Amino acid sequence: MIYHAPLKDMLFVLNELAELPAVCTLPGYEECSVELTEAILDEAAKFAENVLAPTNRAGDAGSRLVDGEVKTPDAFKAAWREYVDAGWIGLRAPAEFGGQGLPALVALATEEMWCSANLAFSLAPMLTLGTVEAFAQHASDELKNIYLPKLASGEWTGTMNLTEPQAGSDLAQVRTRAVPQPDGSYKITGQKIFITWGDHDLTDNIVHLVLARLPDAPEGVKGISLFVVPKFLVNDDGSVGARNDVRCVSLEHKMGIHGSPTAVMSYGDNGGAAGYLVGEANKGLSYMFTMMNHARLGVGVEGLALSERAYQKAVEYARDRVQSRDIAGADATPVAIIQHPDVRRMLLTMRAQIEAQRALTCVAATALDRASRHPNPEEKARNQALVNFLIPIVKGWNTEAANDITSLALQVHGGMGYIEETGVAQYYRDARITAIYEGTTGIQALDLIGRKTAADGGRVARYLIGEVRRTAEALSADAQMQPLADELLRNARLAEACVAYIVDEFARDARRPAAGSVAYLKFFGLLLGGWQMGRAALIAKESLAEDGADAAFLNAKRATAVFFGAHLLPQAAAYAETVLKGADSVLAFDEAAF
Amino acid sequence: MIYHAPLKDMLFVLNELAELPAVCTLPGYEECSVELTEAILDEAAKFAENVLAPTNRAGDAGSRLVDGEVKTPDAFKAAWREYVDAGWIGLRAPAEFGGQGLPALVALATEEMWCSANLAFSLAPMLTLGTVEAFAQHASDELKNIYLPKLASGEWTGTMNLTEPQAGSDLAQVRTRAVPQPDGSYKITGQKIFITWGDHDLTDNIVHLVLARLPDAPEGVKGISLFVVPKFLVNDDGSVGARNDVRCVSLEHKMGIHGSPTAVMSYGDNGGAAGYLVGEANKGLSYMFTMMNHARLGVGVEGLALSERAYQKAVEYARDRVQSRDIAGADATPVAIIQHPDVRRMLLTMRAQIEAQRALTCVAATALDRASRHPNPEEKARNQALVNFLIPIVKGWNTEAANDITSLALQVHGGMGYIEETGVAQYYRDARITAIYEGTTGIQALDLIGRKTAADGGRVARYLIGEVRRTAEALSADAQMQPLADELLRNARLAEACVAYIVDEFARDARRPAAGSVAYLKFFGLLLGGWQMGRAALIAKESLAEDGADAAFLNAKRATAVFFGAHLLPQAAAYAETVLKGADSVLAFDEAAF
Repeated sequence: MIYHAPLKDMLFVLNELAELPAVCTLPGYEECSVELTEAILDEAAKFAENVLAPTNRAGDAGSRLVDGEVKTPDAFKAAWREYVDAGWIGLRAPAEFGGQGLPALVALATEEMWCSANLAFSLAPMLTLGTVEAFAQHASDELKNIYLPKLASGEWTGTMNLTEPQAGSDLAQVRTRAVPQPDGSYKITGQKIFITWGDHDLTDNIVHLVLARLPDAPEGVKGISLFVVPKFLVNDDGSVGARNDVRCVSLEHKMGIHGSPTAVMSYGDNGGAAGYLVGEANKGLSYMFTMMNHARLGVGVEGLALSERAYQKAVEYARDRVQSRDIAGADATPVAIIQHPDVRRMLLTMRAQIEAQRALTCVAATALDRASRHPNPEEKARNQALVNFLIPIVKGWNTEAANDITSLALQVHGGMGYIEETGVAQYYRDARITAIYEGTTGIQALDLIGRKTAADGGRVARYLIGEVRRTAEALSADAQMQPLADELLRNARLAEACVAYIVDEFARDARRPAAGSVAYLKFFGLLLGGWQMGRAALIAKESLAEDGADAAFLNAKRATAVFFGAHLLPQAAAYAETVLKGADSVLAFDEAAF
Repeated sequence: MIYHAPLKDMLFVLNELAELPAVCTLPGYEECSVELTEAILDEAAKFAENVLAPTNRAGDAGSRLVDGEVKTPDAFKAAWREYVDAGWIGLRAPAEFGGQGLPALVALATEEMWCSANLAFSLAPMLTLGTVEAFAQHASDELKNIYLPKLASGEWTGTMNLTEPQAGSDLAQVRTRAVPQPDGSYKITGQKIFITWGDHDLTDNIVHLVLARLPDAPEGVKGISLFVVPKFLVNDDGSVGARNDVRCVSLEHKMGIHGSPTAVMSYGDNGGAAGYLVGEANKGLSYMFTMMNHARLGVGVEGLALSERAYQKAVEYARDRVQSRDIAGADATPVAIIQHPDVRRMLLTMRAQIEAQRALTCVAATALDRASRHPNPEEKARNQALVNFLIPIVKGWNTEAANDITSLALQVHGGMGYIEETGVAQYYRDARITAIYEGTTGIQALDLIGRKTAADGGRVARYLIGEVRRTAEALSADAQMQPLADELLRNARLAEACVAYIVDEFARDARRPAAGSVAYLKFFGLLLGGWQMGRAALIAKESLAEDGADAAFLNAKRATAVFFGAHLLPQAAAYAETVLKGADSVLAFDEAAF
């Protein structure tokens, strides 16, 4: 098996930590249940393991641009057909447009599997779901009727066109133009870069969502509108019509995710591409923001998913590879390297972070579900605030860690890891984009200190610190967990100091907390990850007392929590110190001296 | 300029921290001087910047195996010719064989430049120098006369053939056979993998050093002998003769250093390759060990060199790229990203480690020079012990950090960093091998806790901790440096605890210190790097008082030292905690549960 979906851990996290039973009681999710979720995840696991995972290496050979058309790897076409036919794409799309309307929490677990199995491939449905969300929330009924069913079914795919060469993360600089036409449509002209799955041959049509400016639009971010620009115009009967004036003019030669064509898209080279306004004029950026939490959570899942697959590969290699004697034994016979303490240390460093990240990511997904569906407005708002705080952490921490974790997996392989045929190098290369796209770690960190910490005076942050303390106090009564409890309490104290510092200094001189913003993000990732491991350890202890308990799994969960406390939380404390004491040395350095 | 040799910092480190003037008084090095060194480094800088650096991207397209012969990138052939003609290859080769006999310290600075300019290319001379060293130390006069002048001049290149498929780092498993022939030569048969520059078209001949077993050899590492196996036999007049029975049967498809052909070498497919015993039978491994310090120091330099080049690229991009407003200003105009605090933080994180690593690497090189040349046997032995302790740290820390530093450089570029044409991705891919070959970080760390710490009861480690304390106490009198002094003292205390722990536990159960061995290595890297930054800060303060002082450089050096204290040394403390408290959680985990 080249990938084995971690169903046991997923179900533990969903049921025990992310409160799936409660999520299934939210309005609109009543048809979901723990049993249905198990059935879905079982099927998803088979699909990911047997259909998607085997296409991953082939995808690394990349897509090609031939005569203006993108040719994807052959293996992807068959996989896409199966994926669509099985109905996977609409899992969390609204039921009224052919989707299955499942909670984000459940969909997320399947998305982890898709991303583990084949990240490059999984970006096509992920982007398509983003366009589904945009249509569902903001488009007119007319546009919804034309596009939504085809997108939610996977008959067509969707793309997001934000970036332009002069405007990377700074969308205020967007220059693509949209000129109104007598028939109510718009002529779109401009160039967009880094368009994931911008062109391909998997489907009959591609639906581009494009940020552009109307002629009378205000400067900056308040003058950006959202348009839909189909690759092929759509006839009144819903069939695919004439080719629109939008073209893939080149594909990027990237370090990884080669199977995913990253396109430079040119709009309007021959007079203007026909586009249609989504929602109201000049609200494009705010529409993007409403989708951002889902998208960023999705990229957090990507990081987690690559870490998981790399971990599995490293474990397998470590069990198979026999080299060097046991350091403590008298016997000179070489042993499997999994017996070497440093190899165990590497595997546990991967495993502990993966488990903590899966838990925190799912907790964020539950908050997202509650924020969108909870009947009580206060609970809704409280969960929205929680989501807003957690998203940059999940996105930033999971993806930064994915670089480290895939690197450790490669390291476990020694020289073989550096050989492409081994396959682990691909995870390392693929992972590297996740800390960049959908907002770099620096951008996540700025969001976290500003809008998510300083803006509410640290309220949500302090609420979470309180929860960490509660868990740590409960852990103190559990002898095996005493060191973890101590580490959590020590870091909770540091967290309070960091939050006070961020809130105070942000108002005074935002550059100071900004200098420590990534450390603050990583600190909170580790702290909240440790909190989840602590929660898991407590629950595991209770479960161990039950009849028929899976003792091996539950004991491993507790052992992993202990490791997290001893190996990861000291790093958290170091980050906190840097937040509190590191700003001056960053800001004082003479710019000319770099 | 795509690469700018950091001459100012190199000369500061050589002269002020690594005591170049004293090294030039060692027997055999008297012809070297500070002035000569400056002249050599000036010329080397021009060569690296103008000749080697421009070939680096072209090299990434890789070498090809065509009809059993390796074709290297065209740009490499011209560069090799110029490199050899300029005499660079023999810089630290013995003068009696046409080399220039310069100190390792001076040669190292040039090697940093070669590796920064083109790592894949630089491996050819680096391996060749390794064979020069092996011949000079262990070969008979007859073999020396045949091979040494050609290797030291670069007319031929050399390779090291250690690894076999079943024997990665565990050379006890070597199976290649050597059968004595009536003429005193040997027939060599076997397969070697991961042979750097194992075949190529840069020179008329290639000289392979091969580990193999004689028919009557004992089992394990004590039955390995060293042989020289030329690609072409050498006629009595020194000219190149018949093709020997050794062939490159395939090239590895690696993640990076594509320009460097990594060969699978097959010996004796047609009856046996003619080989000649180097030194005595069954001493091959001990000969390899004598070269190991140089080789591992060299790989440490590789890591440093890629970090330096990636840093330069990131600084350049950060100055040029204009995006997003100043977080603290009222003005909405986008600014160069170098003004954003987190970008400054990333650049300083790179810079601070690079400067510390350059200093520690050069201090190790000076100890190496003293260990080989000091007239006083006690000083010689003292320095050898110092070298032995520092090498695994320099190798392990520099290369692990190179992964992080090249990753930060890529991150500074945002999405552009992930595009291969930008070039920074190549540094990231190239760097990844350095923590693996010539002994993985795990192997360095085991060496450090065992042979280098436990074996002498922690004597050398404690001597170094004492030096750190002395520097920290001097820094305490320097107001700007007070926080650095405090961090050094705190970590010196932790270092004493770690050394005591390693020494005590190693005898009791070596698996416990082994579980924290990489943390111990990284801890010592950061501690000793911080020590060097502290020394540099003190010297810079004195120099600032002198007429004509380069105030910008010296102030930046001090500012970088302050940053190192606030951002890197807290991480050191976290590693120390893990050494002291992390073993049980690594060892207790049930192997079946991974």
